[in-house]
Amino acid sequence: MYQEKKPESVSTRPLGAAAVPDPGLLCIFGTGDLGRSLGLRLLQSGYRVVYGSRRPHSCGPLPEGAQVMSHAAAAQSASLIFICVHREHYGFLETMAPHLEGKVLVDLSNNLKKGLYPEANAAYLQRLVPGAAVVKGLNTLSAWALQNGLLAGKQVYLCGNSAEAKQAVGEMATKLGLTVLDRGTLSAARELEDFPLRLFKEWRLPLCIALGLMAFFFFYLLIRDVIYAAVETDKDISYRITISLGNKVFPIVSLIMLSLCYLPGVIAAFLQLYRGTKYRRFPDWLDRWMQCRKQMGLVALGLAFLHAIYTFIIPIRYAVRHKLISTVVVELTNKTPPFVFDNTEAWGTDSFYMLGILGFFLYVLLGLTSLPSVGGTLSWREFSFIQSKLGHLTLFICTAHGYIYGWNKFLKPSTYKWYTPPGYMLCLIVPSVVLVLKFLILLPCVDRTLTRIRQGWERTPPDGETVMTKETNL
Amino acid sequence: MYQEKKPESVSTRPLGAAAVPDPGLLCIFGTGDLGRSLGLRLLQSGYRVVYGSRRPHSCGPLPEGAQVMSHAAAAQSASLIFICVHREHYGFLETMAPHLEGKVLVDLSNNLKKGLYPEANAAYLQRLVPGAAVVKGLNTLSAWALQNGLLAGKQVYLCGNSAEAKQAVGEMATKLGLTVLDRGTLSAARELEDFPLRLFKEWRLPLCIALGLMAFFFFYLLIRDVIYAAVETDKDISYRITISLGNKVFPIVSLIMLSLCYLPGVIAAFLQLYRGTKYRRFPDWLDRWMQCRKQMGLVALGLAFLHAIYTFIIPIRYAVRHKLISTVVVELTNKTPPFVFDNTEAWGTDSFYMLGILGFFLYVLLGLTSLPSVGGTLSWREFSFIQSKLGHLTLFICTAHGYIYGWNKFLKPSTYKWYTPPGYMLCLIVPSVVLVLKFLILLPCVDRTLTRIRQGWERTPPDGETVMTKETNL
Amino acid sequence: MYQEKKPESVSTRPLGAAAVPDPGLLCIFGTGDLGRSLGLRLLQSGYRVVYGSRRPHSCGPLPEGAQVMSHAAAAQSASLIFICVHREHYGFLETMAPHLEGKVLVDLSNNLKKGLYPEANAAYLQRLVPGAAVVKGLNTLSAWALQNGLLAGKQVYLCGNSAEAKQAVGEMATKLGLTVLDRGTLSAARELEDFPLRLFKEWRLPLCIALGLMAFFFFYLLIRDVIYAAVETDKDISYRITISLGNKVFPIVSLIMLSLCYLPGVIAAFLQLYRGTKYRRFPDWLDRWMQCRKQMGLVALGLAFLHAIYTFIIPIRYAVRHKLISTVVVELTNKTPPFVFDNTEAWGTDSFYMLGILGFFLYVLLGLTSLPSVGGTLSWREFSFIQSKLGHLTLFICTAHGYIYGWNKFLKPSTYKWYTPPGYMLCLIVPSVVLVLKFLILLPCVDRTLTRIRQGWERTPPDGETVMTKETNL
Repeated sequence: MYQEKKPESVSTRPLGAAAVPDPGLLCIFGTGDLGRSLGLRLLQSGYRVVYGSRRPHSCGPLPEGAQVMSHAAAAQSASLIFICVHREHYGFLETMAPHLEGKVLVDLSNNLKKGLYPEANAAYLQRLVPGAAVVKGLNTLSAWALQNGLLAGKQVYLCGNSAEAKQAVGEMATKLGLTVLDRGTLSAARELEDFPLRLFKEWRLPLCIALGLMAFFFFYLLIRDVIYAAVETDKDISYRITISLGNKVFPIVSLIMLSLCYLPGVIAAFLQLYRGTKYRRFPDWLDRWMQCRKQMGLVALGLAFLHAIYTFIIPIRYAVRHKLISTVVVELTNKTPPFVFDNTEAWGTDSFYMLGILGFFLYVLLGLTSLPSVGGTLSWREFSFIQSKLGHLTLFICTAHGYIYGWNKFLKPSTYKWYTPPGYMLCLIVPSVVLVLKFLILLPCVDRTLTRIRQGWERTPPDGETVMTKETNL
Repeated sequence: MYQEKKPESVSTRPLGAAAVPDPGLLCIFGTGDLGRSLGLRLLQSGYRVVYGSRRPHSCGPLPEGAQVMSHAAAAQSASLIFICVHREHYGFLETMAPHLEGKVLVDLSNNLKKGLYPEANAAYLQRLVPGAAVVKGLNTLSAWALQNGLLAGKQVYLCGNSAEAKQAVGEMATKLGLTVLDRGTLSAARELEDFPLRLFKEWRLPLCIALGLMAFFFFYLLIRDVIYAAVETDKDISYRITISLGNKVFPIVSLIMLSLCYLPGVIAAFLQLYRGTKYRRFPDWLDRWMQCRKQMGLVALGLAFLHAIYTFIIPIRYAVRHKLISTVVVELTNKTPPFVFDNTEAWGTDSFYMLGILGFFLYVLLGLTSLPSVGGTLSWREFSFIQSKLGHLTLFICTAHGYIYGWNKFLKPSTYKWYTPPGYMLCLIVPSVVLVLKFLILLPCVDRTLTRIRQGWERTPPDGETVMTKETNL
Repeated sequence: MYQEKKPESVSTRPLGAAAVPDPGLLCIFGTGDLGRSLGLRLLQSGYRVVYGSRRPHSCGPLPEGAQVMSHAAAAQSASLIFICVHREHYGFLETMAPHLEGKVLVDLSNNLKKGLYPEANAAYLQRLVPGAAVVKGLNTLSAWALQNGLLAGKQVYLCGNSAEAKQAVGEMATKLGLTVLDRGTLSAARELEDFPLRLFKEWRLPLCIALGLMAFFFFYLLIRDVIYAAVETDKDISYRITISLGNKVFPIVSLIMLSLCYLPGVIAAFLQLYRGTKYRRFPDWLDRWMQCRKQMGLVALGLAFLHAIYTFIIPIRYAVRHKLISTVVVELTNKTPPFVFDNTEAWGTDSFYMLGILGFFLYVLLGLTSLPSVGGTLSWREFSFIQSKLGHLTLFICTAHGYIYGWNKFLKPSTYKWYTPPGYMLCLIVPSVVLVLKFLILLPCVDRTLTRIRQGWERTPPDGETVMTKETNL
């Protein structure tokens, strides 16, 4: 793009009407990657662009059509100036303050880490140039996205103390295909500067829970399976750690995570029933829990995916093949009673697999609808149908899959090695509770009350009048 | 967000210039979830917001920066009023009609069910307040999407009798990052109110066809496999219902659905060839069929996915392991002729699996490009390459997969139990027909004529002139 | 939509104020698919539309609300005219030139092939009608997308010699929900006309590399495995071509492609370290390589997917089942030493599978985040975390998977049939090199220098001043 342009071809003549700022002309301070990409994009959107540089004659390749001049001259020619300079070098702007009087300065800077400075970059800039209107924003755009024009439909945030300045920047951003969200005064600048540094914030709680559960079940099953065998029967089955144990831990945690994904909804419903109103806020922990349900579901899906693949490769494992061959050899050489076909066993295992497959299929379906572009095409009713009806059906099928796994082992004493229940029994507790509670909510009498509450009805209104008010509002 | 704000901090002073409506000030009637979320979003887009409430002093937390006053005062201060109130409570608006004279009323309401009222909500509102310009729209936005600012690039619909009113609402919506589609006069309000209540409308036909086919093949195979074995050989193989039968029904229906997805295109081509023009409309059934091709393909992909997983778990099934062990035991104890390696059999089954895998891979590829965000990045030629060339290749490979499955069984009499052909033979009929017809279309002479017709040429023009006209249009 | 409308109901009255062009009225020449879809969309966005047709009375169904008149009358009534006519029929516009004086003509045409004409369609149009301002653009929109209103957030390109004309078209496009990118003067028209004809341009290099590698490894392994067996031991194992060979070729090429995806980044880092600056452009071949990294990664994922499925179906293959049964039979009849369980072997193969599964899981994760709609929701730091940290972890795990595969075969002479190393050894070279180089870059001393260079620091500045300038720019 702009790389093709030779630096010498950049015009450095002062603009004819530099004295009167022109709304179609924008100024960019800084000729780095971001400055050049932004300039290119502005030119493509029909703006004219002038760069301010310390060394207008040796600032490297710039987008074709842009002009370059000294900082002061560039600042004079435009009323809107983008500051594409690192915060450490803001110093020179203080000396330029007279030239920036009354201008709109857009601070696009980001920091490398959170909390590097006591003050937000934009607040610092405003302090340096008190006569200008500083607007923080567009800092979530990368040079790469700007250069490739991938802005259409993106959302950007603005903040600043001057409504007019924000309006001007907002109009420019809209023309670039961006959607603007005003976050208020410059005090929100720090929050905006932290946006590009976010690292899976809403994923942390679900991942921590999943990792915690996985660690617990890993050691629990390690003791029950491998160490028990080593101690009691003196057999070394430590090779099971890699696959067999994983294939127990993953489905167990996946099922628990899936039920944790539907538990807060059920709790919220009972809380609303108990309170008799939807107008009181949920406790903070419930709110936070409800906000990471999507991430919980996706973690559960990831674990279910691992469980599926672990299952598919079972028959090619060395230990499994060895056991199969040994069975035959032992049967024939030791003349044990032949391996008679058991119809009940065939029904049991086949149903077990079938439920697992159907559950996984629904799991994947739920995951697909959580893709932003797929979810965006669904109507409200379709989305709630999938996430609520299909979600609970998935939970039901996967729980049934777990119950069938242990169908004939519940009452066998040998199941309870060292008096501990097997892992799959533990993992069935939460899903069963969620399903029972959900079933209670679906009972016609409970459901009717809940629907009324969610439409705004209140059991014990604070005063007689409020009932009416509430009920009128969507 | 707005929850942090205490109700007492809401200013209830009348606005200074309330008498003259201000274009930057919008009014919202109703302080429920939707009203508050909408207000927050409007404030973030740079508007000022005033709420109309029956009890301005006790209406709960509102977004910071919004004012709240009586309905009448609020209505007077703004020219655009959002009605965020349930339809059942529209009554009070009739009494307020004098205050709403000449205002634009935006009806965002939705109903819980279709056909609940004889009249659309917006039409009812217009009847109550004949002096206002009612605009129906934005009702596909949820409070949740408004609150989280997930509007960028979304499409909303408007309708109303006043062009100016629609223009004003449209400009506001554009500023929120929405794209507006005008659906005409207020008579379209019912249609708009039904949008959020749609439930997989375009999925119904494909799902019904798939379920019908699945039911048919399930019972057909149940009789041929399980009941036949019970009657003729007195063996109970009912356990096969869960997995074996599913793994026959799914691929059969999947292949038929895939071919049904390409059949209408072929029919349309032959219809155009027969008619000698592209300017006559297709019959309704063909139009409807063509419109649900994407859904048909996705249903086929879902069934192919199930078929793949059902296949992967075959070797860990109890019945399969039992059979394997029995084979060896029987061979050794009964001294049957040893299991000699048959090279042709190895080639046959391996080719069968390879075609299945490649077919499934292409299936998944087709499914991925039907994701809105992926399809949106493809050029027109890329999209048609994938959906037409790759689609027919997938159909061809999957059909070959089916043919190889039965390669050496076609002529064996034992295949035709009770004189019925096996399921996979039935499922090969439609795909074979589609492929043969497609092959005919690809013959150079037919292809040339079809390309000309699709470029606007007509074989037998109604009159000499029309040919020229048609050919000039893109 | 418009099909419901009867042609006779189309008003052909001349417009009242046809003499003075009205900004809300747009003209469309051509009543074909594109013309009608565009008209419908413009009407839905609040414009009025008039069609220019040679035969206003017999031009077939048009969108409701549109007028139709002769070309000359239609041109007179509007200032913006869409030319929805094939290039071959532009001739009549030359004769109409006087009526088009001063109008904005939007050329939406596309060609069927690249290089069909010596001149871009828009340039040809401008030559025919020199008095009009031709704007090329919107030609990436299909009639289908226009009809279904799927424009929100789409990006379109414009070019033209008149800034005012482009401005007018740009405003119209913005109102349709499109984002406009100005590509400069009409000389860019050819480039714009080639956009819809692109066919996986950025996929070509990765696909060619993948196909080349696959062909090489296919023949290499064919010779080493199948032909070697035929020549040296006189055994026909040609059936292995379909599955076994594929299941070696796919993972080998997949791993090489994945490492080729991370190699250019490492090379670029070393180049920057060597040069001591980030301000010199990379060689062209490196630039091109870096631009197709995403496609390389996706090709690698596709091959890994095939490898996974090929692996899952191993145990149901005829040859595998035959070998299993033979093993048992031979063991029992020939009284060979029994198949003793080898704990090391169990650990080895299980670790091998576990690494493969985890690698595939991360592969899929990387692929998911490359979906446009998923990638768009990630912050810059999240995206770089996934693509860099998680990407190199995937490469490490998959390489380890390869090393474990051959763990005990490296030193066996029988591995080197005909003195050639097995395929998996060859495929480990590039990944190992990438991982070693990456490890060097991660060493604290190297990492520190590289970070400074990437922040703008230069080791040997051309002159003392430049250092400061560079460092100030983002």
